Amino acid sequence: MKALVYDGTLSLKELDVPVPKKDEALIRVELAGICNTDLEVARGYLGFSGVLGHEFVGVVEACDDRSIVGKRVVGEINIPCGACEYCSAGLQKHCRNISILGISKWNGAFAEYVVLPINNLHIVPEAVPGEKAVFVEPLAAALHVFESVWVKPSSKLMIIGDGKLGLLISMVASSLGISHTLVGKHPERFALVENRLTRTVYNDESLRLLQSHDIIVEATGNEHGMKLALNAVKPTGIIVLKSTYAHTPSVDLSVVAVNELRIVGSRCGPFREAIEFLEQGRVDPMRLIECVFDFDQAVDAARFAQSRLKVLLRMWCT
Amino acid sequence: MKALVYDGTLSLKELDVPVPKKDEALIRVELAGICNTDLEVARGYLGFSGVLGHEFVGVVEACDDRSIVGKRVVGEINIPCGACEYCSAGLQKHCRNISILGISKWNGAFAEYVVLPINNLHIVPEAVPGEKAVFVEPLAAALHVFESVWVKPSSKLMIIGDGKLGLLISMVASSLGISHTLVGKHPERFALVENRLTRTVYNDESLRLLQSHDIIVEATGNEHGMKLALNAVKPTGIIVLKSTYAHTPSVDLSVVAVNELRIVGSRCGPFREAIEFLEQGRVDPMRLIECVFDFDQAVDAARFAQSRLKVLLRMWCT
Repeated sequence: MKALVYDGTLSLKELDVPVPKKDEALIRVELAGICNTDLEVARGYLGFSGVLGHEFVGVVEACDDRSIVGKRVVGEINIPCGACEYCSAGLQKHCRNISILGISKWNGAFAEYVVLPINNLHIVPEAVPGEKAVFVEPLAAALHVFESVWVKPSSKLMIIGDGKLGLLISMVASSLGISHTLVGKHPERFALVENRLTRTVYNDESLRLLQSHDIIVEATGNEHGMKLALNAVKPTGIIVLKSTYAHTPSVDLSVVAVNELRIVGSRCGPFREAIEFLEQGRVDPMRLIECVFDFDQAVDAARFAQSRLKVLLRMWCT
Repeated sequence: MKALVYDGTLSLKELDVPVPKKDEALIRVELAGICNTDLEVARGYLGFSGVLGHEFVGVVEACDDRSIVGKRVVGEINIPCGACEYCSAGLQKHCRNISILGISKWNGAFAEYVVLPINNLHIVPEAVPGEKAVFVEPLAAALHVFESVWVKPSSKLMIIGDGKLGLLISMVASSLGISHTLVGKHPERFALVENRLTRTVYNDESLRLLQSHDIIVEATGNEHGMKLALNAVKPTGIIVLKSTYAHTPSVDLSVVAVNELRIVGSRCGPFREAIEFLEQGRVDPMRLIECVFDFDQAVDAARFAQSRLKVLLRMWCT
């Protein structure tokens, strides 16, 4: 099978089709999405070597559990050991021996076939097309913001970052009836999310947001976003941290203590709810798609995806 | 009156006795405590110029409210404007126009007399000697940790830092029946807090605390303490940040997002409860006193206080 492999350089390679173990399924990948994390992996930042990709939709081709063969599925990316003290404590997504699809110790979904534990799979309803289903993983991550902190009707919410994740979080906020401000640097993207609940603000050097918001979602992935968040959040307010950073940022922690702020880290979210949101048409992430590349062009696609909205790879057409 | 003034250099000066306005009281200071913040002020870090000091006990000498004249009092350090949007929202301690006793825009208590709003004062019960009452402010700050996060009976709590604040937090934890580990660099101080609830650990380079604690209190005031906290806290765990930092530290925020940590800033605490704790003998901070200087020696005392436990200044004897 063809697979997009990073092993110091990024290239399409011909690999053997993987063989699922007991309790695992072989999935024929239909569509996959390129995420900023993939681009970080492809720059060597995460020390991963293997097949990239963790956002996908595909069809179960082989599996001991016959009932799911032929079903269209998406898959959770964390593969816990099930035995360590974190797994025992219900913290499987923080397993000490975790493998992560296409990110750590587990070959990813930028391939014609991928293997995942059956437990990781979620069946996608007929009504959800592949171009939406491929967003389940990032949409779940966006939903997780609202599983992490209580946004009250009176809360002044600000989302910083108009990348893929920031825009998805804005869409989810709107679908939950939450008024909010989105701060970004790409005014051409604002129309993708603007509605009566969403105010968009261009982030230039003159932007002053002096301690005026109850809850800030930091989704820029850069140090400047965190500085803006610390500047914009009210005393006793909350910063939800969705970003990971290639380098270790300098952070004014004194203001966290003095202003009694709360910083809440947030990562992967609930697939089940994300699928429901798509099925019910509560968000439409398809408007974030900039381009769909044939899988043969995967290396070009990865290059193109830099600083873009969503770029998809199509392995085959239904 | 004599007062310890910082105006670029630190010196004892002769100043006029301050005149209280309506709703303010003139207090004759009996004892005052030197805090690390005072030492930072005296290095010019906070941009303050004036009389230092914010931990004190004294007697009300003059005040429109005759009922409190002659009473022994301690005083909250934040003087809010009462009119801004934070004050209106009940966030007086984060007032936009705040003055802070001996720290920002308000002359402090390292003087024979100090003025404070009547609203800031708390009467000290007879049973609490001055050498305990002078700890109300830092004890309240220690208590605030347990007003900020819920430490369950099963929570694995670690306090990092065996300075004055770390030791007080350990004492409060013990008084609340909370088992905990105290990490410090001064083994000679461990006996001050050790009991069947408190395990002490020496923090040297070999210390490994791999993601094993539910709640960490960071009370070192240095970057290394925060690194240790991030290393010691479990995924989904909480770091209570008591420290302020003279410089802006580098912080691995990615681990905050990936491990879904919570960082909770904590500052000043409840005076009323701190006084009760002292009255009921639930903690005995007097053991933290290293030395009591006559106020004439205040400049030497400030020099001596560097890296020490509590150093007091005595203005007069009852």
